[in-house]
Amino acid sequence: MKVSVIMGSMSDEPKVEGAIRILKDYGVEVSVRCLSAHRAASALESYIEELNQNGTEVIIAAAGMAAALPGVIASKTIIPVIGVPLSGSVLDGVDALLSIVQMPSGIPVATVAINGTKNAAYLALSILSNRHESVKEKLLAYRKQMMEDALTANESLIEKY
Amino acid sequence: MKVSVIMGSMSDEPKVEGAIRILKDYGVEVSVRCLSAHRAASALESYIEELNQNGTEVIIAAAGMAAALPGVIASKTIIPVIGVPLSGSVLDGVDALLSIVQMPSGIPVATVAINGTKNAAYLALSILSNRHESVKEKLLAYRKQMMEDALTANESLIEKY
Amino acid sequence: MKVSVIMGSMSDEPKVEGAIRILKDYGVEVSVRCLSAHRAASALESYIEELNQNGTEVIIAAAGMAAALPGVIASKTIIPVIGVPLSGSVLDGVDALLSIVQMPSGIPVATVAINGTKNAAYLALSILSNRHESVKEKLLAYRKQMMEDALTANESLIEKY
Amino acid sequence: MKVSVIMGSMSDEPKVEGAIRILKDYGVEVSVRCLSAHRAASALESYIEELNQNGTEVIIAAAGMAAALPGVIASKTIIPVIGVPLSGSVLDGVDALLSIVQMPSGIPVATVAINGTKNAAYLALSILSNRHESVKEKLLAYRKQMMEDALTANESLIEKY
Amino acid sequence: MKVSVIMGSMSDEPKVEGAIRILKDYGVEVSVRCLSAHRAASALESYIEELNQNGTEVIIAAAGMAAALPGVIASKTIIPVIGVPLSGSVLDGVDALLSIVQMPSGIPVATVAINGTKNAAYLALSILSNRHESVKEKLLAYRKQMMEDALTANESLIEKY
Amino acid sequence: MKVSVIMGSMSDEPKVEGAIRILKDYGVEVSVRCLSAHRAASALESYIEELNQNGTEVIIAAAGMAAALPGVIASKTIIPVIGVPLSGSVLDGVDALLSIVQMPSGIPVATVAINGTKNAAYLALSILSNRHESVKEKLLAYRKQMMEDALTANESLIEKY
Amino acid sequence: MKVSVIMGSMSDEPKVEGAIRILKDYGVEVSVRCLSAHRAASALESYIEELNQNGTEVIIAAAGMAAALPGVIASKTIIPVIGVPLSGSVLDGVDALLSIVQMPSGIPVATVAINGTKNAAYLALSILSNRHESVKEKLLAYRKQMMEDALTANESLIEKY
Amino acid sequence: MKVSVIMGSMSDEPKVEGAIRILKDYGVEVSVRCLSAHRAASALESYIEELNQNGTEVIIAAAGMAAALPGVIASKTIIPVIGVPLSGSVLDGVDALLSIVQMPSGIPVATVAINGTKNAAYLALSILSNRHESVKEKLLAYRKQMMEDALTANESLIEKY
Repeated sequence: MKVSVIMGSMSDEPKVEGAIRILKDYGVEVSVRCLSAHRAASALESYIEELNQNGTEVIIAAAGMAAALPGVIASKTIIPVIGVPLSGSVLDGVDALLSIVQMPSGIPVATVAINGTKNAAYLALSILSNRHESVKEKLLAYRKQMMEDALTANESLIEKY
Repeated sequence: MKVSVIMGSMSDEPKVEGAIRILKDYGVEVSVRCLSAHRAASALESYIEELNQNGTEVIIAAAGMAAALPGVIASKTIIPVIGVPLSGSVLDGVDALLSIVQMPSGIPVATVAINGTKNAAYLALSILSNRHESVKEKLLAYRKQMMEDALTANESLIEKY
Repeated sequence: MKVSVIMGSMSDEPKVEGAIRILKDYGVEVSVRCLSAHRAASALESYIEELNQNGTEVIIAAAGMAAALPGVIASKTIIPVIGVPLSGSVLDGVDALLSIVQMPSGIPVATVAINGTKNAAYLALSILSNRHESVKEKLLAYRKQMMEDALTANESLIEKY
Repeated sequence: MKVSVIMGSMSDEPKVEGAIRILKDYGVEVSVRCLSAHRAASALESYIEELNQNGTEVIIAAAGMAAALPGVIASKTIIPVIGVPLSGSVLDGVDALLSIVQMPSGIPVATVAINGTKNAAYLALSILSNRHESVKEKLLAYRKQMMEDALTANESLIEKY
Repeated sequence: MKVSVIMGSMSDEPKVEGAIRILKDYGVEVSVRCLSAHRAASALESYIEELNQNGTEVIIAAAGMAAALPGVIASKTIIPVIGVPLSGSVLDGVDALLSIVQMPSGIPVATVAINGTKNAAYLALSILSNRHESVKEKLLAYRKQMMEDALTANESLIEKY
Repeated sequence: MKVSVIMGSMSDEPKVEGAIRILKDYGVEVSVRCLSAHRAASALESYIEELNQNGTEVIIAAAGMAAALPGVIASKTIIPVIGVPLSGSVLDGVDALLSIVQMPSGIPVATVAINGTKNAAYLALSILSNRHESVKEKLLAYRKQMMEDALTANESLIEKY
Repeated sequence: MKVSVIMGSMSDEPKVEGAIRILKDYGVEVSVRCLSAHRAASALESYIEELNQNGTEVIIAAAGMAAALPGVIASKTIIPVIGVPLSGSVLDGVDALLSIVQMPSGIPVATVAINGTKNAAYLALSILSNRHESVKEKLLAYRKQMMEDALTANESLIEKY
Repeated sequence: MKVSVIMGSMSDEPKVEGAIRILKDYGVEVSVRCLSAHRAASALESYIEELNQNGTEVIIAAAGMAAALPGVIASKTIIPVIGVPLSGSVLDGVDALLSIVQMPSGIPVATVAINGTKNAAYLALSILSNRHESVKEKLLAYRKQMMEDALTANESLIEKY
């Protein structure tokens, strides 16, 4: 059960760490790379080729600014690619959002919120849960817990006011 | 091999048709609904419950304006939800894009381009291809054909100039 | 004389507190909840049902990012719903503003400024004042005071320059 | 049971007509005016004064571009004011939306979608339904019908695919 | 030689001070007010009437958010009104810019940059210089000095590199 | 009593014509030029020099896209410069608006609405009315007429509904 | 004297034709290709390699939506790359503009206006003119002609008014 | 081998320094100026004339807000002009970006990212490398190093996870 997490720049690592931790918590084998579409194109290509062969089921790609990374990856594989726009520039990630979401027909990228790396992990887990019963159960439990936590928080609020 | 396509309004049907056709071409059993999150909430809830039970592997949800539909669906299932922002209003779909992509932590929606219903279908097929070898093969063939068509078009251009 | 204040996340509480205090100052019975449309949907539904029965006259719903909360509430009641977009994300509340204000026909949300929770309270009081003479008088007195304060401030400025 | 509908320019009339019709269908006495905040300020002031005295319960104000009208009205009354941003200019109503929704503290405007005049009417009816049982019943019936129509449309779609 | 400077809120004073100082440096008699279009409408109206009678030649109006102030003033006088959008809200003054600049036909506001209060003063001086030779001379000298300063700065840069 | 109207491109003429007609109606001597800041810089410079000498009291400059024209003119004169952003490009004049309004300190441009050429004329007349009693009287009469027309239109609306 | 013109989609050809014609008019040998970064990546790579060897001096790359093409090309060559954002999508080219201009450090793309293909040709000619005296002369003559045409147009306008 | 770097304001110097250093590292003779298009127009004109004569091959122009500088320079020379939008104002450089990139036909500016001064240097070096073998070699070496650094960083990441 393999997921790959690719970031465009070493400075993105702190934003991506949480996603890696979530995936590992679910027993996913996570392969992490920093391979810019612009600065490491051929290493990226070899790596995608490797992912195409080794049974990787989801790729998460996080990038800021022009953010070509998720789209370039998506063009080299039919493994589902989740793109995370990062807010590195003065434009607060609007540049990255549009660069990632507005893909041409035939080569989609599954885009999540600006800086939404954790949600990228949860989306990857949703995709994995189609095949992996253990992920499905754990994800359902997480959702249940999340809802229970929400209700507990709500109770504390009711008491306060 | 089941995919559900849900639109928020009957007027969205022409934009969604192409996606349904692509999915059917790949042998996917497509369940189509028009169930607004705001106007048909309890029917939507029952339907999602049904999808949770019947082995549906991907849900595509297309909506314009406030576009709560994909997020509301995502909150009721762990089946991967693909959201398509539609350009119905004077804001050309920017409202729908932000409403769909900016989901809170824990409940992601896989967002594609504004009016990108075809790409929603291809993203669904990518997800299906993890489990279904026939989809994988057909999708790889489609990609190969797309690339060959691109090269043929390029050849015609080279000749012209 | 009942108003309900619902927030989408516990982290919104500091932004909402002022509104609660204003309402209580006017003698309004305020019911406060933290019930995300995505994380606490069925508790939200039960609660709205309760509001529909207990004579609540206005609902204030504050949420950030995709901000489906006010619209989802509005779809389950004909009690007037006031939506407050919150600036939690890197997009400074523009995402929440569009998600809240661009509602489809038939199910309106009364939207106020980004982070405009206090104005949500004053709008609720305006609505209450149609039926409740005490609110009307107090609100008129507040307006009068606000105008007098404005003139006093202006006087101090005239003296200064 | 009185509602006032004020537009900023005669050219806004076609966009506002639908709202007037809805209100009249509900038995509301509708007072219609074209009184620009900039071109008819003192007539506007007199008219608001009249509304303050004659028991009007809601004011709907529709305007495009700089769209000062709803805010100016709101500053002269505590009757709830619903603002409708209109898309007259090349900016497609974004100018009017921001001008109407971003009101300062103490003087809120209940803003609906760009060109959302019908929703302004439904929001007005929600407010009226607090006091007027007939409106409440009719509005609940309308909602029920809307939901039934949504399900009927959905059925036709299910049959088609 | 009179100019009026009107701000919408006491919190705008620090942003407006520089403009007042510039005007006074040029021998202009400056009348300063804090008169919100929404919170002090009738005092504002009386004051504009006074300006219409006392020979005031330019009005500078600074406001943030919905920023109706400059337009409301412009509707009550034919004295040229200079509007300064202020960046008070989370929208960084884009709301105020659109609210001020997008005035309807017949009632213009001369809009300057967001937070451009100093430029409002210089624009006022340009207008005054049509009639007041002393202002014209001083403004020409200022421009000359500004250009000389620019060249001196440039010289220091040439030396450095 | 002289006003200059400068456009950046011959294709802007239809948008500017109305402003010229208004000015002539008020007895203003209008000098019209098409002198791009980029394509006719030295002719523009000579012409501004001429305006600086011949008693011109206001300059109106209309331009689209990068729209450097109003600012470049303003840097060469202390005559008040009114800038009109035009919506020629796919960006609907937002590019021109920001290029014109966001001038650096010391060299303001009085910006009006996108395509607001008529308002540029009325703003010019406001400025002229400081010195020219005939303009003042005519402008006050125009305002009065505009307000009367507004009231007449309002009357027709009252009758209709 | 070689320039390459690469478009991302056959549908871009009509927008690019003008640029090709201008370059040919200047005696430039133009190599035209349609090679999407996403659909024809390896053919694109081979072609860039060819350009790197055959003395091509400028590459023009035009693309819409996510518009990764110019950046991907720039990452594979040090030949100057000019990027032209095209307005194919509902976002009018804002998506393509941000995708092209916001490149990471080390790999720039020389971006021109949305749909500015002709300017891409003129920018290419500017770059060529550093080495090619014939281009320099012709470009200077073009500029001179452009300025003369501007003055002629201006003369016709002066006569008209 | 000459490049000119022109900034619009002394406060831009810290943002531009890096670009100057890069150029000098490549053995480029860098001429640095602070010459605002608005505050130092005739000195700017003389300087451009000088650049036209002394064999300068590229001009880099950095400016914020209305940012007319790059376009005004481009209109006075056929030397390639690289424009850098700076984020000085509350609009974070969006104003400068649109002012610089949206140039009219015939007079292009090669625009790079907001605050992308380093990329302006690298783009200048790309242009120089057409004629200067030493720059070409060094730039190719830099690219190679950049790619090797990227791979080294990637290796460290692989080890970590």
